[in-house]
Amino acid sequence: MKEKILMILKQNKDEFLSGEKISDEFGVSRSAIWKYMNVLKEEGYEIESIPRKGYRLISSPDILTYEEIEEYLTTGFIGRNIYYFDSISSTNIKAKEIAMENEEGTIIIAEEQTKGKGRLGRNWTSPKGKGIWMSIILKPKVDPIKVAKITLIGAAAVNQGLKDIGINSYIKWPNDIVIDGKKVCGILTEMSCELNMINYCIMGMGINANLNESDFDEELSKKATSLKSITGNNVDRKKLLACILNRFEELYIPFKERGDIAKTIEISRERSILIGKRVRIIRGELERMGTVVDIDEEGQLIVKYDDGRVEEVFSGEVSVRGMEGYI
Amino acid sequence: MKEKILMILKQNKDEFLSGEKISDEFGVSRSAIWKYMNVLKEEGYEIESIPRKGYRLISSPDILTYEEIEEYLTTGFIGRNIYYFDSISSTNIKAKEIAMENEEGTIIIAEEQTKGKGRLGRNWTSPKGKGIWMSIILKPKVDPIKVAKITLIGAAAVNQGLKDIGINSYIKWPNDIVIDGKKVCGILTEMSCELNMINYCIMGMGINANLNESDFDEELSKKATSLKSITGNNVDRKKLLACILNRFEELYIPFKERGDIAKTIEISRERSILIGKRVRIIRGELERMGTVVDIDEEGQLIVKYDDGRVEEVFSGEVSVRGMEGYI
Repeated sequence: MKEKILMILKQNKDEFLSGEKISDEFGVSRSAIWKYMNVLKEEGYEIESIPRKGYRLISSPDILTYEEIEEYLTTGFIGRNIYYFDSISSTNIKAKEIAMENEEGTIIIAEEQTKGKGRLGRNWTSPKGKGIWMSIILKPKVDPIKVAKITLIGAAAVNQGLKDIGINSYIKWPNDIVIDGKKVCGILTEMSCELNMINYCIMGMGINANLNESDFDEELSKKATSLKSITGNNVDRKKLLACILNRFEELYIPFKERGDIAKTIEISRERSILIGKRVRIIRGELERMGTVVDIDEEGQLIVKYDDGRVEEVFSGEVSVRGMEGYI
Repeated sequence: MKEKILMILKQNKDEFLSGEKISDEFGVSRSAIWKYMNVLKEEGYEIESIPRKGYRLISSPDILTYEEIEEYLTTGFIGRNIYYFDSISSTNIKAKEIAMENEEGTIIIAEEQTKGKGRLGRNWTSPKGKGIWMSIILKPKVDPIKVAKITLIGAAAVNQGLKDIGINSYIKWPNDIVIDGKKVCGILTEMSCELNMINYCIMGMGINANLNESDFDEELSKKATSLKSITGNNVDRKKLLACILNRFEELYIPFKERGDIAKTIEISRERSILIGKRVRIIRGELERMGTVVDIDEEGQLIVKYDDGRVEEVFSGEVSVRGMEGYI
């Protein structure tokens, strides 16, 4: 009911809606409506109420609920079922708990993560209301071996979603989004599987939207930044989230239906920060220098080592670093 | 304390132990000891108590607790931390819940599973006290791609554990143990991973030990049987469980330390029910006839199809069936 009242307020944003009209529309008492208005106000909705005229929505809070992003969403199934949390340990952890009982495309989103994690168990700074901290539940019927490709789809979707709101970014294969040489988004893909069958796959995304420089500690600020720091303005988190989900679905459907990641590879190449760069390829204890030549049709990185040998690098088996630091 | 009292009773199986002596040994009151004895009796321990003589353990129940299998265990870490349940939905489900906080080698064992599962979500009949329904938590530092090999190690360990208690069996690559053409054990390996790192791997084993023919429905009894049906006697579940864990650790350590599965492959070949057999290889909708030629060093099945082509079959991507039915 609260969602319905919010919707009718949004549909009539410039006019007053009488309590009587709302009451007639939904068949609830006027005192019940008054209570729902108070709940909405507590959530941050600014609602003007004038006796005899009724209610008017003045502004909506900056929160990533389904009601707030719905107007920008064009997807069929990605992001159509949202679990929203004000604060949570980690959206990936929650996603794993509920993955089996929820359909593909369900997302978990939180304003704050208290135990956000990046790859290899590293911490991920996720302060309240400043980022987009979310996980998408996926259930592709493909061999577990192909799951690395989903990370590339995620990275391409974030890059394109950022472009949709006017921000240029680069992809650091396989799972980071980079602007001005610093990370603005990381992707952590996890999966649960049997030998030949994915039970589910969780794509966690952490997007540093409106964090301030002071949200990063000194060490982190060397290699991470936020969209706000770069553009000088707060970005519209709702619109950005929806754009990313829209782009993700666009790129994911061909993969899901016929293993096709051609469009993803095209974006991965075009927006690659690595191609043409000299890098260090780190595999366990071993570190080798080389130059990134290309990304192939399967999404593998093609590296020419300084000794002349060319190798296809499978996503995940190595870390790629710039000659000096992060990139 | 209960465990300590049980241990001292077991160590003095043929004599009476006075309450005073136990009381001195552990520093608990004689009435507390009396209470512990009653708890043990409720668990099925037969304990004789005679005034002025004390307590004597007459027999232990047929349950798979750590106290009951410990005397047969020779392992360093496999099965040294046991979660024991009288009844549970599924040991694999429980294992997944507790895997992150528990060390490698931890096992979950239940007398009964109410929602036991085999591969691809199929049901697994797991009546109370009649089978060995367990899951082993593993955390090998290997590429997720290599996890198929762990299933082969599990199958080889069950085959060898059965041999240790005098039962001959065959391995139906990759995850079943077969006697007289029927399944007596199935293995379901699941894992949770990031791109290049296994978070944990769960090896579920269901061993049809002392089930009666009537425990299987008509459909199932065509392809499954129990050790009891085959040998005509109840098998010692405690000893069998410990033997399997012992053998598993023996075969797992070389894999864990240096990726070595040579011994496992040797057993897989020697005890294979498939090598030399004509089979149907089922891959999705596609079914092809061929003859199994060998199992290679990597644990792949080598199949020669009727059209003359030879192919390596990767564990998990196909189902292998006999010409008529299960095998």
